[in-house]
Amino acid sequence: MKRKAPRRIGIDLMGSDNDATSLLEAAAALLPSLPSDIHLVAIGTKDLQSKALSQKLSFICASEVIAMEEHPLRALRKKKDASLVVGLKHLKEGKLDALVSAGNTGALISASKLILKTFPKLSRPALLALMPTKKKPVAVLDVGANLTAKSTHLVQFAKLGTAYQKARGITAPRIGLLNIGSEASKGTFEIRLAYQELSKFEGFSGNIEGKSVFDGDVDVLVTDGFTGNVFLKTAEGIASLVLDRFHAHIPKETLHLMQKHLDDFQRHLHYAEHPGALLAGVNGTVVKCHGYSTPIAFANAIRGAVELAHHHFIDILKEKWEEPNG
Amino acid sequence: MKRKAPRRIGIDLMGSDNDATSLLEAAAALLPSLPSDIHLVAIGTKDLQSKALSQKLSFICASEVIAMEEHPLRALRKKKDASLVVGLKHLKEGKLDALVSAGNTGALISASKLILKTFPKLSRPALLALMPTKKKPVAVLDVGANLTAKSTHLVQFAKLGTAYQKARGITAPRIGLLNIGSEASKGTFEIRLAYQELSKFEGFSGNIEGKSVFDGDVDVLVTDGFTGNVFLKTAEGIASLVLDRFHAHIPKETLHLMQKHLDDFQRHLHYAEHPGALLAGVNGTVVKCHGYSTPIAFANAIRGAVELAHHHFIDILKEKWEEPNG
Repeated sequence: MKRKAPRRIGIDLMGSDNDATSLLEAAAALLPSLPSDIHLVAIGTKDLQSKALSQKLSFICASEVIAMEEHPLRALRKKKDASLVVGLKHLKEGKLDALVSAGNTGALISASKLILKTFPKLSRPALLALMPTKKKPVAVLDVGANLTAKSTHLVQFAKLGTAYQKARGITAPRIGLLNIGSEASKGTFEIRLAYQELSKFEGFSGNIEGKSVFDGDVDVLVTDGFTGNVFLKTAEGIASLVLDRFHAHIPKETLHLMQKHLDDFQRHLHYAEHPGALLAGVNGTVVKCHGYSTPIAFANAIRGAVELAHHHFIDILKEKWEEPNG
Repeated sequence: MKRKAPRRIGIDLMGSDNDATSLLEAAAALLPSLPSDIHLVAIGTKDLQSKALSQKLSFICASEVIAMEEHPLRALRKKKDASLVVGLKHLKEGKLDALVSAGNTGALISASKLILKTFPKLSRPALLALMPTKKKPVAVLDVGANLTAKSTHLVQFAKLGTAYQKARGITAPRIGLLNIGSEASKGTFEIRLAYQELSKFEGFSGNIEGKSVFDGDVDVLVTDGFTGNVFLKTAEGIASLVLDRFHAHIPKETLHLMQKHLDDFQRHLHYAEHPGALLAGVNGTVVKCHGYSTPIAFANAIRGAVELAHHHFIDILKEKWEEPNG
């Protein structure tokens, strides 16, 4: 199954809130720290080609760009040569081993489904984010691929998250269903239905509230894409508020004394440094960053994709997905 | 309109995750710090009466208790003398000026609608929580009274939140709609519809993501009760995670040096110390705590209710609600 080195990471420069050049530079700046068998391949409009090559990035030319505010399906019908489409086709053909994009989420997901196809028996892929807790990180899905989810989708997300955590080496992942209370009767109709279905799963720990997720007692957090996205971004916002308050309360001289520790602490918390969300459940490694990702966050997402490609993660994930009950 | 002092705060001791005695003791411990015109009135089963009186609390006897896991409407039909019903009836009759409960949320809300009635032209009341930001606190609603919300409800929550912030002295509150992106096209059908409707409001700032809420640029955050509840509890969970990580990263000796500052910082963040959610939009001051509230958090909710009753907040809120466009 495993392809031979080198591994090629495609980087969609287009369609995010940042200009393409700053993303290109962030990618190029990463190169010295990457293993020598990793090739970064920038994908963008022709005007970026010479800049990319001069920075030692490979380059694939795409003539079109899907903007953030475009309607995903309409844009995909019209722009057959959009950067993200070109990237996905190269991924499909094995000319890339992973793709990173900060572009239009809906377009990226729809095109991924069309071009890469989903795992067998999976109706919809999900965006999966790995979030820190007091113990091990929790895999949260969906964080934005599907606005709403039927109970059958939620159950599939639970299976997908379980496969993901197994691929990361956790032998018996515990699953929590994000809800507003622990009782089986809590939540919307679809969530209550999913609860019943998930009760048949060995790893199911029941409903879990946003408050308790960060205690780290579940490995997989299942939710619809709207709620998951709010969950993820609220966590970011609060972490930033806490750091702000911290600086307001601790006098400068004291802060100075502990700068090194503080840096560690902040790095540990800063969600902008998290390596994007994996589009789990399609046949290929697609990593999605927020459109508003800073160049640093974008570079970290590339680093995350490098890691996944390096370990042939997608092959392992697919194996685990096909295991019974996982 | 304003009633004469003293103000009587009813405290429902029953049906939370804590035992009634510990809540009673938390309430009694508050007494010395309260203004002399404030009377605390415990509501509970007969066995608590002597304990309450010995602790200088007034007491109202209720023969029944609605448990956390009971179906709200079925419980209300059966238990006419449940503590929260008795409390609400006293509130309705002016024998109490506010009611604090940590019991069954659904039952408390349904009974409040039935007994107190909602504001004119309001279909559904909402649970409103005041949350810290980098600037002024933001009023978040709904945080759990309604699992789902039609666009018309979201618009009413925006009006209710605006009235609430006006009652707190903010002359032109800015409204944000909690969403997964800033574009008008983002979110579910009902949210997109609410966006259109809210665009006619002077104070409407558009969609806002969980990440940006804590920057403090909106005074009112509008959302459905499921999402709002997840939002609120995620904020709690992350704040706790951050403090945990902080302690892990900063050496004990250093922590010791800055204990006083740290205490301030933690107090500022600790969501457990926030004074519960107001059931906004019913004719009476009803404050709801989480069922899992610690006795300290419960006492702080009582303090919050005292504050509201002391300032005749409910009368001002209703006035502001009845102003045009607010």
